[in-house]
Formats: sequence, C-alpha cells, structure tokens
Amino acid sequence: MAPTKKAGVLGATGSVGQRFILLLSDHPDFKIEVLGASSRSAGKPYSEAVTWKQTSLLPESAKSIPVSECTVEAFKDCDVVFSGLDSDYAGPIEKAFVEAGLAVVSNAKNYRREPDVPLIVPIVNTDHLSIIESKLKKAEEAGEKRPGFIACISNCSTAGLVAPLKPLVDAFGPIDALTATTLQAISGAGFSPGVSGIDVLDNIVPYISGEEEKIEWETKKILAPLNKDQTGVELLSPEEIKVSAQCNRVAVSDGHTECISLRFKNRPAPSVEQVKQVLRDYVCDAYKLGCHSAPKQTIHVLEEADRPQPRLDRDRDAGYGVSVGRIREDPLLDFKMVVLSHNTIIGAAGAGILIAEILLSKKLI
Amino acid sequence: MAPTKKAGVLGATGSVGQRFILLLSDHPDFKIEVLGASSRSAGKPYSEAVTWKQTSLLPESAKSIPVSECTVEAFKDCDVVFSGLDSDYAGPIEKAFVEAGLAVVSNAKNYRREPDVPLIVPIVNTDHLSIIESKLKKAEEAGEKRPGFIACISNCSTAGLVAPLKPLVDAFGPIDALTATTLQAISGAGFSPGVSGIDVLDNIVPYISGEEEKIEWETKKILAPLNKDQTGVELLSPEEIKVSAQCNRVAVSDGHTECISLRFKNRPAPSVEQVKQVLRDYVCDAYKLGCHSAPKQTIHVLEEADRPQPRLDRDRDAGYGVSVGRIREDPLLDFKMVVLSHNTIIGAAGAGILIAEILLSKKLI
Amino acid sequence: MAPTKKAGVLGATGSVGQRFILLLSDHPDFKIEVLGASSRSAGKPYSEAVTWKQTSLLPESAKSIPVSECTVEAFKDCDVVFSGLDSDYAGPIEKAFVEAGLAVVSNAKNYRREPDVPLIVPIVNTDHLSIIESKLKKAEEAGEKRPGFIACISNCSTAGLVAPLKPLVDAFGPIDALTATTLQAISGAGFSPGVSGIDVLDNIVPYISGEEEKIEWETKKILAPLNKDQTGVELLSPEEIKVSAQCNRVAVSDGHTECISLRFKNRPAPSVEQVKQVLRDYVCDAYKLGCHSAPKQTIHVLEEADRPQPRLDRDRDAGYGVSVGRIREDPLLDFKMVVLSHNTIIGAAGAGILIAEILLSKKLI
Amino acid sequence: MAPTKKAGVLGATGSVGQRFILLLSDHPDFKIEVLGASSRSAGKPYSEAVTWKQTSLLPESAKSIPVSECTVEAFKDCDVVFSGLDSDYAGPIEKAFVEAGLAVVSNAKNYRREPDVPLIVPIVNTDHLSIIESKLKKAEEAGEKRPGFIACISNCSTAGLVAPLKPLVDAFGPIDALTATTLQAISGAGFSPGVSGIDVLDNIVPYISGEEEKIEWETKKILAPLNKDQTGVELLSPEEIKVSAQCNRVAVSDGHTECISLRFKNRPAPSVEQVKQVLRDYVCDAYKLGCHSAPKQTIHVLEEADRPQPRLDRDRDAGYGVSVGRIREDPLLDFKMVVLSHNTIIGAAGAGILIAEILLSKKLI
Repeated sequence: MAPTKKAGVLGATGSVGQRFILLLSDHPDFKIEVLGASSRSAGKPYSEAVTWKQTSLLPESAKSIPVSECTVEAFKDCDVVFSGLDSDYAGPIEKAFVEAGLAVVSNAKNYRREPDVPLIVPIVNTDHLSIIESKLKKAEEAGEKRPGFIACISNCSTAGLVAPLKPLVDAFGPIDALTATTLQAISGAGFSPGVSGIDVLDNIVPYISGEEEKIEWETKKILAPLNKDQTGVELLSPEEIKVSAQCNRVAVSDGHTECISLRFKNRPAPSVEQVKQVLRDYVCDAYKLGCHSAPKQTIHVLEEADRPQPRLDRDRDAGYGVSVGRIREDPLLDFKMVVLSHNTIIGAAGAGILIAEILLSKKLI
Repeated sequence: MAPTKKAGVLGATGSVGQRFILLLSDHPDFKIEVLGASSRSAGKPYSEAVTWKQTSLLPESAKSIPVSECTVEAFKDCDVVFSGLDSDYAGPIEKAFVEAGLAVVSNAKNYRREPDVPLIVPIVNTDHLSIIESKLKKAEEAGEKRPGFIACISNCSTAGLVAPLKPLVDAFGPIDALTATTLQAISGAGFSPGVSGIDVLDNIVPYISGEEEKIEWETKKILAPLNKDQTGVELLSPEEIKVSAQCNRVAVSDGHTECISLRFKNRPAPSVEQVKQVLRDYVCDAYKLGCHSAPKQTIHVLEEADRPQPRLDRDRDAGYGVSVGRIREDPLLDFKMVVLSHNTIIGAAGAGILIAEILLSKKLI
Repeated sequence: MAPTKKAGVLGATGSVGQRFILLLSDHPDFKIEVLGASSRSAGKPYSEAVTWKQTSLLPESAKSIPVSECTVEAFKDCDVVFSGLDSDYAGPIEKAFVEAGLAVVSNAKNYRREPDVPLIVPIVNTDHLSIIESKLKKAEEAGEKRPGFIACISNCSTAGLVAPLKPLVDAFGPIDALTATTLQAISGAGFSPGVSGIDVLDNIVPYISGEEEKIEWETKKILAPLNKDQTGVELLSPEEIKVSAQCNRVAVSDGHTECISLRFKNRPAPSVEQVKQVLRDYVCDAYKLGCHSAPKQTIHVLEEADRPQPRLDRDRDAGYGVSVGRIREDPLLDFKMVVLSHNTIIGAAGAGILIAEILLSKKLI
Repeated sequence: MAPTKKAGVLGATGSVGQRFILLLSDHPDFKIEVLGASSRSAGKPYSEAVTWKQTSLLPESAKSIPVSECTVEAFKDCDVVFSGLDSDYAGPIEKAFVEAGLAVVSNAKNYRREPDVPLIVPIVNTDHLSIIESKLKKAEEAGEKRPGFIACISNCSTAGLVAPLKPLVDAFGPIDALTATTLQAISGAGFSPGVSGIDVLDNIVPYISGEEEKIEWETKKILAPLNKDQTGVELLSPEEIKVSAQCNRVAVSDGHTECISLRFKNRPAPSVEQVKQVLRDYVCDAYKLGCHSAPKQTIHVLEEADRPQPRLDRDRDAGYGVSVGRIREDPLLDFKMVVLSHNTIIGAAGAGILIAEILLSKKLI
C-alpha cells in the first residue's frame, strides 16, 4: 500500500533534516511532499542543495524535489511537518505553522518548555499526547477550525536516560535521585562544522553547552504526570526528584552511552533481578499501537560484563531500542547501570517519525 | 652532580617498566643498576629484549644493559627496586625482595591491601610513609638488620581522584559521599595486547575489570588516618564514606578524565569559590621536601568551560600535576567537577619515582 | 523457498567465521549444517563457544548449534564448506577435506599459489572457476568419484584493487605498470588481539606483514588468462606487468582505501571519460548469473572530489560493490584513482559466499 | 644571553601563529615584539584574543601583549616578521611589509611561485637564500635603502618529501620520477573549524584541496638549482622530473606520513645500503651554521619493519628531524620508502623559525 500522508521537512539540508528524509524515503505511511531550507537553497533540486553526509545513499525519490522556502504557503497541504530547523530559526517559523493549523513535530528546543507543548520520547510518554488530543477535541466541540500544534522531540541524551526510568517508576514508584554521566557521540552536533576533529582525536571534551541543563529539566517534564484536565504538564519539583548530569563528548559517531545511578523513594528498594525483569518486560505503547517504527524489544537488558557498547549495540531495533547493561547495586544510591541509545534515531529524527506514527494511529493527524 | 642511588627495575620490558626506565634515564638521584625481566629475556641487552613503544626514544644508557632474571641475587646491591611486574608474578618475587632487606616501590596490586603496607599517591598521603619509618626505627632500636619494605603505588584512576580530595578534607572536614565516573586512557592497559583497536574505534567500553572496586576501596585507605602507633592504616568504613565508581575505557592514549561529585559531612558546605581556593593553594609535601619530580603546582584549577581535556592538559607539571575544572554545585551532593590526571605518570611509574624521591629525602632509602 | 544446500564453516568462532555465519543466517540457498572450531570449543553450543564481536546480533538460528571439531567426519554431508581457518591450521585440514571429496571455499592463504587452485574475486575472474569445472568433468568422464576441490578467496586488499582493473583490461588491453598504496581497515586483522588500540590511536602503521607481497603476486594470478586446457593459470610475468604495493594500517573499522595508478601497454591510452564509462558499464558475471549476493552495480564511479570514503561508501551494494573516485590523469603513469572496497565482504567472507553462489549456479556444488 | 632580535607575528591568533608564539617564547635569538591579528582582536591582550589550542600552555610572556592590527606601522621596528596569515589576507599585507623594507618569513602560499622569492625547507635548500643575499648586496652596492624581502615556507607535505631527496640527488644525481601518497595529520588544517570530527572518525578523506598540486610543483622549485646570477630559481621541467602525488587526510593529530617511490636518472642505480648511508650521513646546512633549532640528526633512518609511525617518531629532534623507514627496492621505479615529518614544525611554523635563524646567521636580518 502506498503511503497516503503528506509530510514536509523543515531544515531539510541539515543533519537532522537529512535523517528525516532517509527515514521517510520508504515509509509506509508518509510521503515527502515538501522540503524546506534557507532561501539560498530554495529553487534548487534537493540533490544540488544538500551536502549529503549519511552512510546510506541519498534516496532517489528525494533527489529531484525542488527545495522550498520555509513558508506556510509552501507547506500548507502537509498532514505533518517535521522540523529539523536550527533553534536560531525555529521559533517564528514553527509558531507561524501552528497558527496556520499545521501539525509540527519538532527537533528544535524552542518550545519544549511550554506547559501545553508535549515533550515526547515516543517509547516513554505517549500519554502526554493527550494534551494535543484535548486541544483538538475542544476545538471540534466548539465548532472551530482544527488547530495546529507542536509535539517536541526531547534532547538526545534525555531520550536514552528516561527510557528505562519510565517502566521502573511505573513498577516501583517515584525515583527521587538520579545521576547521569554521559559519553556522547559527535553526530548529534551536526557537521558544519559540528565537532572539530582535533577535539575528539586522542581526546574527550567534558562539556557540551546547555546539555546538562536540558537533561536535568527535561527529565522532570517527561516523567511528570499530565495535569488533571489533560491540557498540560508541570515539571516535577526538586523535592520530588533531584537530577544531576555531567556531559562529555567522545570519539563515537553514533550512540550515546550514559552511566546512571538512581534511588527510589519507596523502601525497601526492589532487587537487581526485579529491576531487570521490569525492563525486559516493558513494551512501549507505540509497539502496542502497531506503529511501523516501534521497537519490538523496547529495552534490551544485556548480561555481558562489558556491554552495551555504541558500535555493537546502537542499531538494535533499528536504533529505536535502548540497551541497558551492568545493572548492579550502588554503594550510594540504589542502583547503577549503563544505558545506550542511538542519538539520531530515538534521540532525534527517528523519534520524530515515531511520534508522527503515534499521532496517526491516534488520528491526531 | 651524578646520581648516587642504585635503582633496579622489575618487569623492565613491560609497559610500566619502560616508563620507569625513561624516567630514571636522566634522573639526578637514581641510576639504573639492574633491569629484570622474564628468563626468556635474561642475558640479552635491553635493546634487544624490549619492544620499545614509548614516544621518547629508548635512552642510550639503557640500551646495552644486560637483562637479568628477577632474583634477589641480581638486585641485592640496589638502594631501591621499582616493580612493574604483572600481578601474576609480583607476589612471591616482591615478598622475597622484602625478606632480603630490599626497598621495593611497586605498581602491582598484590600487597596494596596489607594494613602495614603504605598505599601512596605521592602528592597526597606521604604521611603514610611513617609506617615504613616506624618499621625501620623499631628494627634499628632493636639492633636488627635493616628490614626491607614495600611502598605501593595506587591504581591509576584512584590517584587522580584523591588528589583534589585530600586538600578539601584537610580544609573542610570529611567527605561522606563520593561518585566518580571515569573515561580512562588505553595506555594503562599495556600493549601486548592491551586494549584492542576495534574496541575503542568509534566505540567506548563501559567496563574495566576490577577497576571500580579498586577505586572504591583504595580511596578509603588513602584518605584514612594512620593508626596511633603509626604502624598501619585501616580503611575508612562505609559509614564514614560511601564511594561509587563507574569506569569506562575511551579512545585516549594518556590521561584519565573523571567526572566526580562529592558531599562533605559538615554543614554548611563551603562555597564553590572556597573549594577552588583551597585547591589552588595546595602544595604537596613532596614539593615542600624539594623532590625533583614534585609538581610546582599540584592542582591546576581551570576556569575554561570545556577543560580539562586529556590531550591539552595531561602534561601539566610533566604529568605530576592534576587538573580540575568545571567546579560547580551539584543538585544531588554538594559539588561536581572534572578531574584529569596522567595515568602513567602520577597514576603509575611516575608516582613510583616520586615515592622513591620522598623516601630518599626522608632517608628511608 | 527454504535453502537446500548444506553449508559448513571451519574456524567458526574466529572473525571470518563469524562473518560467514552472519551472511549464511538468512541465505536463500545455503543453510548452516556444521560449525567447526578448535577442540577447546567443540561440544559447546555456538553461543557459548564464541565471543561475538559483530555489529549485527548473533543469529538465533546459530546460537544452539553444537560446535564440532574440524574433521572430515563432522563435515561429510556438507555441499560446501567455508573455511575461515587461520593459516597455521588450514593446510592439512583443507587438504583432508578436498581428498574426502568436499568442496571448500577458503579464506586462508595456504593454497592460493597452487596453479590448479583458482584464486577468485567473484566480481572479477569467475572464468577461473573453469579449472574446477574441468576437473569435475574429467573425473565424471573417467567414471571416477566426484573429486573435492578448493576455491580460494583472494587477500582483502587485492580484491578491491583488481575490481576496476578487470573491465579496464577487457576494454583497453593489458596494464603494464601498477602502483597501489593502501589505507587498510583494522577488522581484517581479527580481534584476538588484532590490531592494538595504541597502534591506531593518533597513529598509522606503515606496514602489514606479508601484505605487499600478496597484492603484488595475487594481482598477477587473478588478471592472468587460463591456460589452454583450462586446468590452471600461470602468473603474469614481470615483463607483462609490474606491480608495486605499499600498505598502511589506519584507524578505520571496515573498508580498505587504495590510491592506485596504472599504465596501459597500448598507445594511445584511453581518455579519463572512456575509463569512467567502462567502469560504470561493467556488469560482473555473478550478477548476470543471477547470484543472490551479486552487486547490481559492480563499480560505483563517484564524481565528488572527496570520495570514496570508507565510512560513507563501504556498504554500497551490501559491501559487494566497489567504489572508484578521483579518476584523473597521472603525471607519471596514465591514470590515478582511489578505490574503496569492503574488506570483510568482497575482500573475505562475503566473497566466499558469492563464490559459492556462482559454483551453485554453475552446478559445481 | 637575552634575545636581541625583535620578532613580529602576523595572524597571531591562528593555528600557525600560536605555534610561532610557542617556539619564540623561549628562543635565544628572537623576542616577540608585536602580535598582529584581525581588527576584531586588536587592542585586546593576547590571552583574551586567542582561543589557545596547543598542548603546551600559553607562555606567560605572551599573555599580556596587546594585539595589534597587521599594519606596517605596528611592525616597523621588527627585525623579522613571521606570517601565519591565511592566504585570503596574506597577499596585500605581506607585499606592503616588503615594500616597507621588512623581512618576512611567510607560511602563506601567495608568493611561493615567484621566481625571485625563495621557497625554503630549512633542512634542504638553504642555498636558495642567496636570492635574498644577492638582492641585499645589490641594493647596498647601489647605495639604496636596505630592501625588504619574503622567504616562503613550503607546504607541509612537501617539506617531508624533499628532505631525503636532497642528499640523494647530491650523491646520486637527478631523480627523474617520483610518487608520493600521503597520510596527513589534521593539525595542518587549523581548528576553526579545521577538519570535522565526523570526517576522520572511522574514516579517511582521500582528498585535500590543492595539496597534490602543491607537492607536484613545489618539489620542482625546491630541488631546482639557482639561476646563474643567483637572483631566482626556475622550476625543473616535466622532462627533468615527473612528480605524482595522492593526498589523504587521516585521524592523526601531528605528523605527515608519505609512502614514496623514486627513480634516479643515472644507471646503475645505487644500492639500498648506499641510499641508507647517504641519508644517515646527511648533515643539513642549518646545523653546520650552528642554528639553535637545527636537528642534530637531519634524517633518522629506521630499520624496524613497521616504522616510522607518527605518534612514536614525529618528535625526533624536536620535530625538526625527518624519519625515513622501510627503504627497499621498488618493482616499478628504483626505491620505495616511508617518510615521516612533523607538519607543524618542519612543515610550517618551526620551519619559519629555523629559516629566520639561518637568515640571522647569514646576517640577512
């Protein structure tokens, strides 16, 4: 069956945009309708406008699509618009798209903090999409035109971190302390210029601008409950959960590794084996909904002493599955473990595609 | 002035042994007297026995030294013996050397846990060498032959970790909780075969056998006080300090980076600026004693947002100085910071040389 | 349709053996019947005997296969046996297998030089398989038992080199001078220990034992014509072609890059555009025969100034296609160009699978 | 003795400029007088204007020097001006400096091709500085004001290549064919942004813009004889020497490796041992002149099968010595060998310093 939903991509020539195009190029539900980029690229065939830097070839079907400017007019027929825009540009463009009634799934950080904008890790908190459902329903009941909306993709390192936390919280109650030290891949930084070679050759950089703050607050939104009328979500308070992140850039192309430790609020804490079992058994909503890209196994619990490793484990479930290893007791908090997630799949463009699949299965687009 | 003290090196062809030789080759106090290796190498000139893998050339003076077997007989005239032996062999050999009255400075882990063997980071706990002083004095007073002894070098990742802790504990009282996530260089694993290339190319390995345990207990010995009669030291208890380590191998040649967080027992905790000031002002005993290799600046407090970095900062004070950056408050404990130390200098062979210099200045050899 | 041909793998726990298993695990023609390894592994389920180091997961179907010793008895029912044995062991084992009438496709170097053993790059010189065809036919006509045989896989760096040479020689006549400087991936060296991390971190090693010699003589066998009665092949002479290779190991996981230059014997030499056209138009015999793994596009001629690159181009046609870029005139010989090939696919295990597919389509197994 | 000659640095905040400053910071002959950079930096203390990216710390003495604009007025008192300017800016600035009578040693490519501008590798063709000597002498004899001049530093990969060629040509006569395939470090590309991390992680790039052309023509200038009246030098013709280069960027921080092959014009060619002996015996003029930075051993002939390697050998003679290994006969030309040189020392800033030392010892500054 041919895909029926029309998709647009904002920031199509950038790193995230290229990933959107790859993932959409043979998608069963979505077909690329519009590719938007800067006015410098507009008018050119995509293959000429882009410096293609993916390990898969530029899909034939995308090559000749003429690049548009990022205007509402150009995207007005899209059922969904994926935004890979840089945050310097995303603000007013995405706002205009929403006001024009478009459905936007955005990788930019600009609207993530808005209480009525769901910040979604699609293998974790699909329930937050009820914010959109409520909004559409309310408009429908009021006889108003179907409103536009944004669903935000989380920061890449947050995505991997919260994946195992969600089933643990569901099973054992709140986590009240959480530390994460990350070893992050360079692909997340794009490539013009992205991370400089000399910075990651025989080296690591113990700092990524803004990253620790994102992990610390995004976790508090993604793990928070919806408010009562399902119109928004408030961050968990520092009293509810303390989160401390330390971020490092390392010489890895794809795949963020995170050494985490956590403490549950409730006593006694579960056993290591109980923790493993809950993670193994977790099936994400997206898979239950039958979404095309949803991982069959959401969390891979690895028993080998030295795993997960980015080169060996990042592509599990096509990058939508998250690997967790070295689950063991922690002398300070309750448990420590190592989490690996594919930063450009479940941590960026791939998450966007899966969010759109969920929106579709919920008839929100 | 020509060096006067005769030094021997056990395990001279190995990775640590090569470093000992480099550091001894133009040392003002020590001259290489004996090089010991396996019986397979014995009898050959050192230049033929070794596969030299250092970035500095094999010193001319060492080239023609004939390799000996690791026997007491061969080393009996040495004022000090540096042991770079693999732990599979170090046990009985080092024991025999001590029983024969020799002074051994060892990088092997075999005797580190013995209460009457000082485990020394030479920029941190030189006071623990009083164990040896007591032993020698007691024998002298009893009119006995001067006894042999071992001083152990700490594990490489412990060395960097405790360097900033010592002045902080001295200034602000005990630390009761400590976490350290390491990003460790591959040189510490030696080179036959050491870390495999495929394991650190576009990859990290979130596991180093035995390493986390070493950090967790060695910290408790190095930071512990001497017992009253100065004949030994007991580990701090889990009630006194909780230590949690997570260790990773990364694609860095030299220089261990550690993302640490810590909490002081006493309230109120000091300010960030007070912490920095104490670290900046710290002068290690070895420097006060005038030891040749002692760092002029023990702790380098870096203010740049993205430092320390291994390639740029590992060689400060010839690898004997430790760099600390990103000192900031921690949402969970009191402070977090990034510590960088040179794993083969202050974390291994270099530490051994500096320990021997201290022993010499204290007239213990 | 279920696969019908029974395949065995010798050296199944090694690097090449693991690749054979991956490629066979969902193959339409072959199913794994026996996995052979050392007596140390024999008896264990494969999943326990192996240290799996591939980026794809160990196939479920292979996990529980009990490992056999490498004896004729264990493999006697196999239609084809793939050998990933180390050359230290391959000699007598492969000989015994052939004498027992088995069809062996070997990655070991032991029999490559035998005039009556075809040395095959399956996208290049499938005509050399006539040696086997002749042998079988002769035995059949003599009413003898069907004899065993070996087909050898070439060295990895030779495979990439000769791929573009074959169509050029077919079109423009003999090449009489050829230079190749290689930048070779580390996966070809296996992983126990394989290439040491410290050797390829901020470093290259300008030497691979035996590699230059292999390129220099294997090229002379693969490009040589069959002898008249199709029972063997003689190396081209130094008068016919001069080949000079310089080999380097670089920090790349998969994908050998080769900077080559060549001169044709015939004057005038073709134009750059003629060379490109011949390479673009080349369709390998294996594809014409309809072999499952044969590349649709044998040679990818890249026009971008900075391609091919191993990370971006090694997986073209699932690693069976070879990429050629920067084709330009050479001030010394006629042309220079850059060739990239996947060393473990078209340069090792993958070549073995494709050779077996060709043997099958020619009814030689 | 305190340094007496006043040095200026153009492009002081860039990669090459930083190296000039490091090398000048404790130089016996030169002291830094002026640091010039863009108008954006002008007026700031150097430590604030620069993003220091060297493995050695920013020298104390340079920290507080106020950055000047790159005007003749600011540099008018300099005895020598080192230019690390980008070629986009170097043209008119260097021209103005020469016209104002200043002595410029430039790393920029702008004036390298001028017949009356010497292109100098200071361990190779110091005789070409006679062009400057002639110019100064002529002006002096004519009673004119002392004229300014430029001496150009060669391209980094050319420097390493010609170092062993010069003594070979002196001993055995002209080389008529030369090939060089390079594996080049990333430091040469600067760091804003320089080479992108994703381009050299698990990858090589077989292309460096303009590099092959530079090697091919610069070799022909550096190896050429002075014209009769010592006022210039003409390139060797294609009939005299054919040069073919293929350039690759690899994941190495410092140190260019070059796999070269060459043929002498005269028959019979020398033996491998004769070639080695000539290289070992070579003493560069700069060393004979007593220049501070001149290498004691100009060419290190390595006998180990797998050397030279950049990480292990690049720092020989503080980066001013060149290492040559694997000298062997070539099936196509006469010899092949591997050459390693430090691209930022003998291939860039370091060469500039040594050129200035030679100029000083010849009283040309």
